Amino acid sequence: MNNITKALQQKIDLKTKPTGALGRLESLALQIGLVQNTTEPVLKAPHLLLFAADHGITKEGVSAYPQEVTFQMVMNILQGGAAVNVFCRQHQINILTIDAGVNHIFPDNPHLINSKVGMGTHSFLSEKAMTREQLEKCFEKATSIVDQVATTCNVIGFGEMGIGNTSSASMIMHSLCGFPLIECIGRGTGLNDQQLHHKFEILHSAKLFHGELTTPRDILQTYGGFEIAQICGAMLAAFQNNMLILVDGFIATSAFLVAHAMNPNIIKNAIFCHQSNEAGHQKMLQYLNVDPILHLDMRLGEGSGCALAYPIIESSVKFLNEMASFESAGVSNK
Amino acid sequence: MNNITKALQQKIDLKTKPTGALGRLESLALQIGLVQNTTEPVLKAPHLLLFAADHGITKEGVSAYPQEVTFQMVMNILQGGAAVNVFCRQHQINILTIDAGVNHIFPDNPHLINSKVGMGTHSFLSEKAMTREQLEKCFEKATSIVDQVATTCNVIGFGEMGIGNTSSASMIMHSLCGFPLIECIGRGTGLNDQQLHHKFEILHSAKLFHGELTTPRDILQTYGGFEIAQICGAMLAAFQNNMLILVDGFIATSAFLVAHAMNPNIIKNAIFCHQSNEAGHQKMLQYLNVDPILHLDMRLGEGSGCALAYPIIESSVKFLNEMASFESAGVSNK
Repeated sequence: MNNITKALQQKIDLKTKPTGALGRLESLALQIGLVQNTTEPVLKAPHLLLFAADHGITKEGVSAYPQEVTFQMVMNILQGGAAVNVFCRQHQINILTIDAGVNHIFPDNPHLINSKVGMGTHSFLSEKAMTREQLEKCFEKATSIVDQVATTCNVIGFGEMGIGNTSSASMIMHSLCGFPLIECIGRGTGLNDQQLHHKFEILHSAKLFHGELTTPRDILQTYGGFEIAQICGAMLAAFQNNMLILVDGFIATSAFLVAHAMNPNIIKNAIFCHQSNEAGHQKMLQYLNVDPILHLDMRLGEGSGCALAYPIIESSVKFLNEMASFESAGVSNK
Repeated sequence: MNNITKALQQKIDLKTKPTGALGRLESLALQIGLVQNTTEPVLKAPHLLLFAADHGITKEGVSAYPQEVTFQMVMNILQGGAAVNVFCRQHQINILTIDAGVNHIFPDNPHLINSKVGMGTHSFLSEKAMTREQLEKCFEKATSIVDQVATTCNVIGFGEMGIGNTSSASMIMHSLCGFPLIECIGRGTGLNDQQLHHKFEILHSAKLFHGELTTPRDILQTYGGFEIAQICGAMLAAFQNNMLILVDGFIATSAFLVAHAMNPNIIKNAIFCHQSNEAGHQKMLQYLNVDPILHLDMRLGEGSGCALAYPIIESSVKFLNEMASFESAGVSNK
C-alpha cells in the first residue's frame, strides 16, 4: 500500500464503528480519497450532462416508442418535468441538456447546448452509423463541454435520451465484451416477446453485415449513437480532468466500455451508480468487475441512477470528514 | 383494486417514462400513497428515534466490544460524532437519543430522553432478561414518545445502540421464525471464528434453559433488550398513528418481527431500508417477504440504513408529485 492508501484506510478504521461496518461507503470513501489524493476529499458542484440523439436503426422497428419521443423528451427535460429533473433538483445537481444529434430543429433555448453533429445516425443495418469525421466531432465537442464544466466541478454524471439507443449499446457490448449477442439484447423501453425477437433478428443481420470490428473507435463509429459517442468522449475528458465519473445504466455503461477500451485507467475514477433491469447491464458490470451502488430495478436512463446514487456518494465523503474517531470521542476500541 | 390503488397506479403509469421503468421507486410511491390514502402524499418532519440499552448477556463474552461502549457511543451520538449523526444532518432528519436502559448514570442533558427501565437487562442465559413489569414499561414509555413525535411527523425510523444486542435479536428471530439457531447467529461487531462459536454455545444453552416460548411478549421479555422492546412498542405506536415506519437492520428488524407477530397489519406501513451484512438479516427479510431498498454491505445499526435510504424514499414521493405526465408534457405514449 502506498502512503495515501494507508492514511485513508487508517482514517476509515479509526472512525467510531466496527471495522468495515460501513461496507460500500468505506470502499467509496477510499476510492474518492485516492482519486483526489487526500484524506479530506470534497465534492464540488456536481453536474449531470444529458446527451440526446436519434438513431437511424429505429426505422427497422427496434423500439416500443416512435423516434419523435426523443425530441419531445428533450423538451420535457428542458421544462423540468422528467424523472432526472426531479432527482437532480432534490440533490442540487446541475443538469446540462445537450443536443448531440436529435432529428429535430429546436427553437433557440439558452438551456439547450447545441452539440449537434447530424440529424440522427444512419441505420447500422446496412451502413456505418456515422462517418469517422462525425465520430471525431463527437469527441471534440464533448471534450470542450467537459473542460468548461471542470473549471468549477469535480464530480460529473452522464445521462442519455435517444429512442433506439439500447440497440447501439447491445452491439457495442457484444463487440467489446464478446458475450453472445442474445445475452446483450433486452426489452429497452418495453418490447413484447415478438418485438424482442424482431430486434434480435435485426441486430443479428447487422452483425453479419459488418463482421468483426477490432478497434473501439471502429465499433463506436459503426454502431454508436451520437449521444453514446459524445458520452464516451466526455468520460475520457472527465478522466483527463481527474473528475469523479458517475456511470448510469445500460447505455452510459456501453459508452464507458468504449472509453475503458481506449484508456483502461479510467476505471479508477468511475463510480457505477445503479444496476439497470435492462438485460445485459449486469453482465457489463461483471465484465468490468465493478459493484454498483444501487439496485432499484429501474430501466430509465436519463442519468436517473446517477442522481439517485449521489446522496450515498456524498455520505461516503461526509462520514470520512465528519465522523468522530475512537480517540476524539473517547470510545473504547477493541 | 380499490379506487385509491387504481388512481395511484394510473398516476404512476402516465408519468413520462416507460411503464414500470422507475422500479422500486414505483412500488414505494404506491405504498406511501396507500398508507396516506392520497395520490399526493407528503413526508413531514422525518424523525429517527435512537434507543440505547445494555445487555446482561454481554458478561458471557458474546460481543467483540466491552459493555461501556454503549454509554460511550451514546455520548458520541449526543455530540454529533456517530455515523448516524452525519447521515441525519445530511438529510435533515431529526434524531432523538433515548436511554432505554443503559448501565450508566448520564449527567443531565436536554438532548437525551430518559426512558430508562433499568441498568441493563439480566443475562438471559439463566433467567428472563426483564420482568413483565419492565416489558410493559418499555411499551408505555415508547408509546408516549412516539405519540408526541406524531403531532408533527409522519415518517419515523428507529435505530439502536446496545453492545450485545445481536444476541437478543438472534434469539428473537429463532423463536419467532423457526430458523435453526445457527442460521440466526452472526459476527455482530466483529467476532472471530472462535468467538462466534462461543456465542453459539451460549445462545444454545439459553435456548435449552428457557425451552419453547409461545407468545411474542414472552419471547421479548425473555430475550429482549430494553431498546428492542421499546423499538417494538414504538413501532406499534407509530402504526397506530398511521406513520411510515422505516426499518433498519438486524436488531430493528427483530423488534419489527415481534411487533408484526402482535399486529400483522403493521407491514403495510413498514419500509425496509437496508439489508445488513449481519448473518440472518437476509433470512428475516425473506421471512417477512419484503424487499429492502439498499444493499450496501453495512452492519452498523444506529438507524444508519434508515438515514441513507431516506432520500430514495423522498425521491419516490417527489416523482409522483413533480414529474410531468405524457399529456402535460406533450410526449407520445405507446
